[in-house]
Amino acid sequence: MSVSGLPMTVADPGLPARVRIHEVGPRDGLQNEKTVVPTDVKAEFVRRLAAAGLDTVEATSFVHPKWVPQLADAEDLFPRVKDLPVRLPVLVPNERGLDRALALGARHVAVFASATESFAKANLNRTVDEALAMFEPVVVRARDEGLDVRGYLSMCFGDPWEGAVPIEQVVRVTKALADMGCDELSLGDTIGVATPGHVQALLQALNDAGVPTGRLAVHFHDTYGQALSNTLAALRHGVTTVDASAGGLGGCPYAKSATGNLATEDLVWMLQGLGIETGVDLAALTATSGWMAEQLGRPSPSRTVRALSHKE
Amino acid sequence: MSVSGLPMTVADPGLPARVRIHEVGPRDGLQNEKTVVPTDVKAEFVRRLAAAGLDTVEATSFVHPKWVPQLADAEDLFPRVKDLPVRLPVLVPNERGLDRALALGARHVAVFASATESFAKANLNRTVDEALAMFEPVVVRARDEGLDVRGYLSMCFGDPWEGAVPIEQVVRVTKALADMGCDELSLGDTIGVATPGHVQALLQALNDAGVPTGRLAVHFHDTYGQALSNTLAALRHGVTTVDASAGGLGGCPYAKSATGNLATEDLVWMLQGLGIETGVDLAALTATSGWMAEQLGRPSPSRTVRALSHKE
Repeated sequence: MSVSGLPMTVADPGLPARVRIHEVGPRDGLQNEKTVVPTDVKAEFVRRLAAAGLDTVEATSFVHPKWVPQLADAEDLFPRVKDLPVRLPVLVPNERGLDRALALGARHVAVFASATESFAKANLNRTVDEALAMFEPVVVRARDEGLDVRGYLSMCFGDPWEGAVPIEQVVRVTKALADMGCDELSLGDTIGVATPGHVQALLQALNDAGVPTGRLAVHFHDTYGQALSNTLAALRHGVTTVDASAGGLGGCPYAKSATGNLATEDLVWMLQGLGIETGVDLAALTATSGWMAEQLGRPSPSRTVRALSHKE
Repeated sequence: MSVSGLPMTVADPGLPARVRIHEVGPRDGLQNEKTVVPTDVKAEFVRRLAAAGLDTVEATSFVHPKWVPQLADAEDLFPRVKDLPVRLPVLVPNERGLDRALALGARHVAVFASATESFAKANLNRTVDEALAMFEPVVVRARDEGLDVRGYLSMCFGDPWEGAVPIEQVVRVTKALADMGCDELSLGDTIGVATPGHVQALLQALNDAGVPTGRLAVHFHDTYGQALSNTLAALRHGVTTVDASAGGLGGCPYAKSATGNLATEDLVWMLQGLGIETGVDLAALTATSGWMAEQLGRPSPSRTVRALSHKE
């Protein structure tokens, strides 16, 4: 149900005027789908997201196909979307992945580290420091090639095996990624347990350690319904890059209950109400997520998509 | 999945130290259930909520049984729970309803007005001012009897027929309820369209009109996933009373898509992470909502309930 004039726009002068949404639906959203989504459908998903005004659409991952079968078609998919007039970041776990991405003309790549030993072991079969050592040559070479490099940090606010994650531990790993040359650091709440004071404290600790807010992005999961209020806390701290997944698709394969990235539509509803520019057309985005939900054969977990798709 | 030590507690000095949760599950949560819930189950629900530490549990409504058949057992239910050591507000639409509530020894009552003409017509078959005129003798008499009176305001942030609702219109009706003697005013976002700047602007406008924050409560719906970030904005403004419904039960019969009160568990997760005292035991509350979901035969819409109920 769409009601004209809603949400009403009332700005908050303490928040940024503009936010970049880093759309992760085609990669993070789809990577754990059990049924392989046809490459044509993925390409159309990326195209529709770009057409809805998202200027950054994470397209796929150049990990070994054995680890993420859903994204095994990266070589086939990327050329179909690479000429879209948007940023199309891709994940590269190692130098081989970077080679593949470079060969296809990718301009934006991302590595993915963990703030905890348990998740580094589960996701990368390495210690945290071994993983950082693996990423360093990737980041250095990517930057030498003129690419823009993002560093993902998982488990920044809690870990399913370790529980609470000390802030200084997250700062250490984030700073290591920053120091090796990552342009942007995305702080992931992989199991969705963060709350607003914790978000602000981590951002402040990173600033205190010399990582400016301008290099930080936030990546919240809605497992406990906290993603949007944590986003609001991050915006109040000055963060202007927010990760979200169209329709709320996605989760994490190794983290039980880690269902639900922040839905891009729920984020856009809030930002639109706050008068914060994103460039996104909410109706077109909602239609895209509705279409993708049909392809996947199940309703979108995004509350906004469900509300706006509700037929009178 | 419950992980020990999560959420990690990190306070925000700009927020209140303590919040009172006004639990509306047994009334607002159940009133639109199509299958009549047995009175025994309702009484047990109220008892379990009180045992989980909720000190205010809205028990039922003394509207005419024809309008809300689910709550037609108010006379039977109330005596079964009235000796619990918690506040048990009940809804009273008119003097007849107040008579019934007084006869049973209710000490906390609530009237329910609308900020918009369309909803006043749909819900009460009256204009806004006719509804206020109906409530005035109820409020005056209830206060003469020493009762604590709450005034609900519906459609404070948007209306399914009228769209955006001017802030000055909400202020006028809220102030009328305050002036006639309501101790507390609960600002309802009945269709869930509010965003944080709008929330702050309405609260400030009410303050400017002479209604102090201490008399204001917020009542958000999660239709577009906005309830918790709006709550955070209200807390930052100083609000210390927040309405929520255990398990996210409820909606609004006349407002399409108005599904989903803010789930008490999602709220408690955030408040616990922020170190804000509520007196609520999250595990006991989640167990209660899980039990109630079994009674209703469908899973809880609360993300926290679903995450914490997830079996490894």
